[in-house]
Amino acid sequence: MAIRIIITGGTFDKQYDEIRGNLTFKDTHLPEILKIARCTVGIEVELNQLIDSLDMRAANRQQVLESCRRAEEDRLVITHGTDTMVETAGVLGAAGLDKTIVLTGAMVPYVFSNSDAVFNLGCAITAVQILPRGVFIAMNGRVFPWDDVRKNKEQGVFTPRSESGAL
Amino acid sequence: MAIRIIITGGTFDKQYDEIRGNLTFKDTHLPEILKIARCTVGIEVELNQLIDSLDMRAANRQQVLESCRRAEEDRLVITHGTDTMVETAGVLGAAGLDKTIVLTGAMVPYVFSNSDAVFNLGCAITAVQILPRGVFIAMNGRVFPWDDVRKNKEQGVFTPRSESGAL
Amino acid sequence: MAIRIIITGGTFDKQYDEIRGNLTFKDTHLPEILKIARCTVGIEVELNQLIDSLDMRAANRQQVLESCRRAEEDRLVITHGTDTMVETAGVLGAAGLDKTIVLTGAMVPYVFSNSDAVFNLGCAITAVQILPRGVFIAMNGRVFPWDDVRKNKEQGVFTPRSESGAL
Amino acid sequence: MAIRIIITGGTFDKQYDEIRGNLTFKDTHLPEILKIARCTVGIEVELNQLIDSLDMRAANRQQVLESCRRAEEDRLVITHGTDTMVETAGVLGAAGLDKTIVLTGAMVPYVFSNSDAVFNLGCAITAVQILPRGVFIAMNGRVFPWDDVRKNKEQGVFTPRSESGAL
Repeated sequence: MAIRIIITGGTFDKQYDEIRGNLTFKDTHLPEILKIARCTVGIEVELNQLIDSLDMRAANRQQVLESCRRAEEDRLVITHGTDTMVETAGVLGAAGLDKTIVLTGAMVPYVFSNSDAVFNLGCAITAVQILPRGVFIAMNGRVFPWDDVRKNKEQGVFTPRSESGAL
Repeated sequence: MAIRIIITGGTFDKQYDEIRGNLTFKDTHLPEILKIARCTVGIEVELNQLIDSLDMRAANRQQVLESCRRAEEDRLVITHGTDTMVETAGVLGAAGLDKTIVLTGAMVPYVFSNSDAVFNLGCAITAVQILPRGVFIAMNGRVFPWDDVRKNKEQGVFTPRSESGAL
Repeated sequence: MAIRIIITGGTFDKQYDEIRGNLTFKDTHLPEILKIARCTVGIEVELNQLIDSLDMRAANRQQVLESCRRAEEDRLVITHGTDTMVETAGVLGAAGLDKTIVLTGAMVPYVFSNSDAVFNLGCAITAVQILPRGVFIAMNGRVFPWDDVRKNKEQGVFTPRSESGAL
Repeated sequence: MAIRIIITGGTFDKQYDEIRGNLTFKDTHLPEILKIARCTVGIEVELNQLIDSLDMRAANRQQVLESCRRAEEDRLVITHGTDTMVETAGVLGAAGLDKTIVLTGAMVPYVFSNSDAVFNLGCAITAVQILPRGVFIAMNGRVFPWDDVRKNKEQGVFTPRSESGAL
């Protein structure tokens, strides 16, 4: 089974710029993570863009949609900032592609020792292989359909639209 | 959705004993991992046993089977040593319980900086929520039914029985 | 031998605020690091302040000086942001206390997997036990007297005033 | 100032062999650690041997002594297993070389997330630059002369011969 991982940046891939003392993007950590994960699934990694999801405009989301459309694989994982992940999932969901698409991200960058990035990637890679056609978000160990998910920004967790997100 | 994680030990939970200079078991790291993962799924952690899977005898596997049978949850994840994971999956598969059971483990203990434990747990927790009734193994980013999987011990990877395991 | 570690914040102790998505202070990591280091030296940890060294004003430096003066121990380590570490060292050096004082910090916060914080702390704790009375900076594996050190901000390294800092 | 780091193996450099499921040696982690430490001291790394210090025989210690004698640098750090570090320090001390030699090691291998290796290396690199001629052991944040140190194997800590090692 072949999977394409489309990288858009987000907290997942943020690094520390020790000269400026802030978080920024240099490159993706996906190849390194897949190696540590001993992942033997056939995976194509595509660097689509490297931006904070708060900076994502309509054109950026179109660029993601175009990659999904163009991909030869019909199983796609997208790494994405959490702040507007639901919005991008909405654009992809509305497009109705005949593919299984799972978006994931991280609340804490991979380079931190207490990051959720590796766990979330495991969730997304597994979900994309099992789920039927459609667009989903895999976060917090759960899988949500694109049209019933929101980010509770106070708690920092994803929930169905109907749930409060209280832990 | 409620999940029970049944812990049996294996490489996943091994720790370094700095006095003796070898790898051993002290306790499970599951609660710590679930916290780092920001996992919001309802999860019950059960410490079934803490042993190397090479030391697992029939009685140990019965103890796992009994936990599966007894569990109120119908979605179960089992952490297990990789060396005899396939054998335990066989015992559980033959029992034909009306539950979804996913076994996982690690090639490198969680306490190592390059461990696959967190990734694999993400895979298993996701698989157990989506898959139908049956017994499965989640390793290397893949999900295998219990009756078509083997561990290629030279390569250190799980494959379907028919595959060579060459990377 | 008794040592006091006076904490002022700086990159060393910065943490990731996953709700706001930026770096901030919550608490110090010193007790955790000393435990991992298996450090058996008698150490008193004092939380003096937790701020970015770019935000340090004269009053903040006086607060550090007062702690140094008041300390019963005559061997003091100060964790400090790197940007104005030289300036604070100057204030302490000019005060001419009859103590050995070593300032250190980190270019990358402790919570990142590639942090220099633990290494630098080992350097400072060792230097403070061996050096004579005076004020020093321990960074990059080197020890500098307070009046012959500067931070090369382009390279992100400390050097004597006379050196270029080129690696 | 030029320092030579002479590597002999020990817990410091042990790695996990995921095929055999045990701890073993593959290569040294020193270059990686020095990079993370942002260490700008001129350092020559010499791979002398890679063995468990319990396997060290007289010939192995002679090999270390020969490296010390031959070294152009007069400041030497030796990474060494903790179990017989005191014994090797004794051989080097008795040789009376006109150099500063600091032995260090780790109670927990570098590749574990809770390792003391990086801290200890910071201690040793600093001690070797400041101390006068002689042979020393840097462990647990302390520096010991070669003829007044022992390893308390029950506690896993180094102490002067006269101390009990109780924490």
